[in-house]
Amino acid sequence: MNILYKSEPERGRIWAGLLAELAPEANFRQWPDVGEAAEIDYLVAWQPPEDLSAFTGLKALFSVGAGAEQFDYAALPADLPVVRMIEPGLTSGMVEYVTFAVLGLHRDMPRYLQQQQEKKWLAHSALPAAKRRIGMMGVGTLGEAVLQPLVQLGFDCAGWSRTPKHISGVTSFVGEAQLDDFLTRSDILICLLPLTGATEGILNADLFNRLPRGASLVQVGRGKQLNHQHLLNALESGQLAAAVVDVTSPEPLPADHPFWQHPAIWLTPHIASQAQPESALTALLENIRRCERGEPMHGVVERERGY
Amino acid sequence: MNILYKSEPERGRIWAGLLAELAPEANFRQWPDVGEAAEIDYLVAWQPPEDLSAFTGLKALFSVGAGAEQFDYAALPADLPVVRMIEPGLTSGMVEYVTFAVLGLHRDMPRYLQQQQEKKWLAHSALPAAKRRIGMMGVGTLGEAVLQPLVQLGFDCAGWSRTPKHISGVTSFVGEAQLDDFLTRSDILICLLPLTGATEGILNADLFNRLPRGASLVQVGRGKQLNHQHLLNALESGQLAAAVVDVTSPEPLPADHPFWQHPAIWLTPHIASQAQPESALTALLENIRRCERGEPMHGVVERERGY
Repeated sequence: MNILYKSEPERGRIWAGLLAELAPEANFRQWPDVGEAAEIDYLVAWQPPEDLSAFTGLKALFSVGAGAEQFDYAALPADLPVVRMIEPGLTSGMVEYVTFAVLGLHRDMPRYLQQQQEKKWLAHSALPAAKRRIGMMGVGTLGEAVLQPLVQLGFDCAGWSRTPKHISGVTSFVGEAQLDDFLTRSDILICLLPLTGATEGILNADLFNRLPRGASLVQVGRGKQLNHQHLLNALESGQLAAAVVDVTSPEPLPADHPFWQHPAIWLTPHIASQAQPESALTALLENIRRCERGEPMHGVVERERGY
Repeated sequence: MNILYKSEPERGRIWAGLLAELAPEANFRQWPDVGEAAEIDYLVAWQPPEDLSAFTGLKALFSVGAGAEQFDYAALPADLPVVRMIEPGLTSGMVEYVTFAVLGLHRDMPRYLQQQQEKKWLAHSALPAAKRRIGMMGVGTLGEAVLQPLVQLGFDCAGWSRTPKHISGVTSFVGEAQLDDFLTRSDILICLLPLTGATEGILNADLFNRLPRGASLVQVGRGKQLNHQHLLNALESGQLAAAVVDVTSPEPLPADHPFWQHPAIWLTPHIASQAQPESALTALLENIRRCERGEPMHGVVERERGY
């Protein structure tokens, strides 16, 4: 079995070492050392090679990330399964990041760290978690995992998704019809939506204006969902109080971008969820075994839906 | 029944309103409107009046905070019960703050926010929670509550206390004899100790040097436990990577203090745990009812032990 890896070289070297232990029968090739293209069974990549016509034996394309919206599907063979990465390391990273961000916004930490810069020692009253309404946009595998500690910490949690979700302690809002009800009760809005035609640019002035005044945002979806200027305007007007932003478009941001050094924005370089080499490779191998046995793989993209 | 309150006037006004609902039989007086001192049954204060000799009917002194080390016990009647505040709002505030701080240190957030200031977009590899060793100094009511979400998030947790503790997922280290073993395995050290003769100045160079190189500190105990200069030295040398500090001595810090604007220190103005008016008053009234019925109150200070 031949696996071709085409992504960050450093992770590739780590995977090569791990694979020798976990699946010595597999032959791991790292881009650009393709060898005979027709021999490649599985391609693991963030971006596949531009021309796949020589890869005549390809059984599946695996994304190295949780998303698979970066692929140009028109350029891929129509019957090639495209598979997103679903692995516990990716999930726990997102759980940690969003729990951190929600607690930070809940407890006014951007304001306190700004006060520290200003040498100001001033306490503000805190709201109990039960009175803080969390709204999760996108309740898939990741969203559900992220909601769990927030429910346990006592927050008043809701989720918004295409189909109804039944999660203990989480009110489910469904589709366009219930978006307004969902937004008007979200003091801290978390975006974990996949990038699709319907979600591109969704975090805009119209949406921000439907949140309670002084709400906050955690953006851990995809960069193209957020209108940067609209976020800046909402922070300026006080409609939003603060934002934690992990993904932007473009990445990295240009040097003169106002998100850098903005006192009400915490910006991180797309690190909310990082695949852990060992658990990611284990998940990949499990999917390859399923594919070899003709069983359904985890995370296969439905191309019409877009994720 | 007459209650005299002597602390922040704003909280006093909120309590007066709540008390009228919750215990209309109680007569609430706010300092300095003492009325007849001999009539006062219960004193609720951060600092009691200097001269208590006129308070001949006093049944108990309640601290408005989780600590009671601020009292000058020599100046208090020897048989007067002194009671610390144990209430769910105080606990959940501490749980939120420490969970936030531990996740922030675990995920390198002080470094990322510093990078944001420097307009630097650079990801660092993340460690799984299972490989991050958390050490809690002081495992009382608060410490045990704080450990719970950390265990659930998958951290490798240990506690250090005077007596052995049996908490699921937490290794117990006991007393001076096991302090060294505890420190050498603590990547993120949390101090939640009460202030006593034995804990004053405990967070010093000698202790920092026994932690793994590059460890971090969460200081939510009492200001006098931390040697400021030793913390600065440890950050300078790289022995410590970062610190989240909520309590200092003095408070507030003077304007020229190096903790302000230090890139590796997150400083907050003693807000980790703030009593919530309603739950704090409910806890107080429960203790008063216990006292009236001759039952043991929650949080009575053992004067020899100091907390």
